Amino acid sequence: MKTIGYAVHDAESKLVPFHFEHRALRANDVAIEILYSGICHSDLHQAHDDWGGSLYPMVPGHEIVGRVIETGADAKRYKVGDIVAVGCMVDSCQTCDQCNAGEEQFCREGMTPTYNGKDRQTGELTYGGYAKHIVVREEFVLSVPEQLDITKAAPILCAGITTFSPLKHYKVSKGTRVGVAGLGGLGHMAAKLALAMGAEVTLITHSANKVDAAKKLGAQQVVVSSDENAMQEAAGSLDLIINTIPVKHDATPYLPLLDVNGTMVMVGQIGLLDEPNIAPLILGRRGIVGSLIGGIAETQEVLDFCAQHDIHPECELISVDQVNQAFDRLAKGEVSHRIVIDMSSLTVND
Amino acid sequence: MKTIGYAVHDAESKLVPFHFEHRALRANDVAIEILYSGICHSDLHQAHDDWGGSLYPMVPGHEIVGRVIETGADAKRYKVGDIVAVGCMVDSCQTCDQCNAGEEQFCREGMTPTYNGKDRQTGELTYGGYAKHIVVREEFVLSVPEQLDITKAAPILCAGITTFSPLKHYKVSKGTRVGVAGLGGLGHMAAKLALAMGAEVTLITHSANKVDAAKKLGAQQVVVSSDENAMQEAAGSLDLIINTIPVKHDATPYLPLLDVNGTMVMVGQIGLLDEPNIAPLILGRRGIVGSLIGGIAETQEVLDFCAQHDIHPECELISVDQVNQAFDRLAKGEVSHRIVIDMSSLTVND
Repeated sequence: MKTIGYAVHDAESKLVPFHFEHRALRANDVAIEILYSGICHSDLHQAHDDWGGSLYPMVPGHEIVGRVIETGADAKRYKVGDIVAVGCMVDSCQTCDQCNAGEEQFCREGMTPTYNGKDRQTGELTYGGYAKHIVVREEFVLSVPEQLDITKAAPILCAGITTFSPLKHYKVSKGTRVGVAGLGGLGHMAAKLALAMGAEVTLITHSANKVDAAKKLGAQQVVVSSDENAMQEAAGSLDLIINTIPVKHDATPYLPLLDVNGTMVMVGQIGLLDEPNIAPLILGRRGIVGSLIGGIAETQEVLDFCAQHDIHPECELISVDQVNQAFDRLAKGEVSHRIVIDMSSLTVND
Repeated sequence: MKTIGYAVHDAESKLVPFHFEHRALRANDVAIEILYSGICHSDLHQAHDDWGGSLYPMVPGHEIVGRVIETGADAKRYKVGDIVAVGCMVDSCQTCDQCNAGEEQFCREGMTPTYNGKDRQTGELTYGGYAKHIVVREEFVLSVPEQLDITKAAPILCAGITTFSPLKHYKVSKGTRVGVAGLGGLGHMAAKLALAMGAEVTLITHSANKVDAAKKLGAQQVVVSSDENAMQEAAGSLDLIINTIPVKHDATPYLPLLDVNGTMVMVGQIGLLDEPNIAPLILGRRGIVGSLIGGIAETQEVLDFCAQHDIHPECELISVDQVNQAFDRLAKGEVSHRIVIDMSSLTVND
């Protein structure tokens, strides 16, 4: 299937229109016309090869909402016209203990990322959501509940599942005291999801000018991290912190906010942290743990959860020709919440 | 009660004989003649005020084995002549949720340390085990099972409980794959305890010349951390790592040794770590957590466990006049396992 996307051809270049071909449908494949594609901060990192190992040409995008346009001979889960979604993975071994446990993100053979990966059968590069079409095996295609506004649903596929998974893993429920550090794409979803689970939410932001936005989300408390008195008053007040800060930072000041046995989950920065002080960990049996997106069943669960609780990411819709400008704004930290590309602005003839 | 101990009078000085008086017995107190007193690396840190807030004169020592010589009017748990022990705490509020849960080390009001603390009633300094006597409320006095060799039991009170508690907390049992990083006082106890619980133990040491000692402990595997091939071969092979390394270090190379959902427990260094890379945490839902000694009931449990499994710390017995030399050797890392002071070498007339 011939299609078009926006690709980077090396770590220094901008996104440009890119004509490419998707594989002919395998028996269990679904072909999707992409309608909306979220821009994740990790798209920048990978486009710029910040983490190493980037594969070019790269069509970024792993927050995808679209419409089924064709199905393989044995693909029975979806029919033409269904509104579906694709997240951060398009394949895994499907046989290891992790896959069997619904944790495909930790597949023993390594999951296949939606872009910047290689097809398990042919070794061809995978291309993501900044494109008109995508072909994905049906096991990795999610159903979008009709209650969701499809113009805003895409960020659930990464920002949503990335924060939903640790909230579930640590059994957040009514009354759990959840802190959210950082108030961007992930942070605002963490807050919405935790509130819907009945948690008491404290937003921790470094910038006093985000306090109003934090309160609008419904958070019971907002703490400005540079306010030492406020930080001291909040000591021991949290069971769980979802740390969404996407850059190298000093996480130590957040640790005393946790009660005994509390846990800080890192979902933003994938790289170095400043030298942490271990004392607050030891003196309260506290922990710093990581979490990576979520499994496929859990990704369906967060879509259903958002539909049930009328949760939508805060989205700013752009056309595809604004995507380089969007990257620049993201890099400068000028984006609140999430940018979504309206893919109807891209035509195969571009 | 007049007695004698060895004290430091400021952060720079050596330990010298020190005459002092313990309180007259309260109704729930037990007076103990100290027979053996272990030397913990934290004694050096506190004597030298490495962590700040040290109180002088300081009589260190929180690994204490002794004999009951007097009991308060209402103290019924022990009788004169009983062999007993005192660990890192001598009091706590006894009413908060943590105390009620048997986690006195996390007492909401702060537990009272055996030395370098203040009595909750009078504010007088607490003096530890490098002394002829100690007076402790009976709730914080442990019973030493008769199967234990009392010349070697003292280090169970800190090195033992500090490693036993996380092994229990993380439910180590038959077949659990436990790594132990660092092979000193804490590390060798972690290995013995984990082996007795049925775990498969991997010792991780930075020095190739400790491999023989590691194997003697019965560890199934020994990995030299500077051997990159060996570290890569061991990737993903552990459920839990007890990290006993007592200095600032780079913990990142140990993280990939953990399987998905694995946990590294920090019990050695109380202070800064080198900048960690968060990627191995995120890519396997791994965690770095702290753990602090253990509660009183759990301390009794580790004493009983050691008696039942014939576990004794590896001890080197010294006389009290060798204590400054012992500090020097510990500071230089020249001590394998644990030094214990035979307190019969100290008399009240010294």
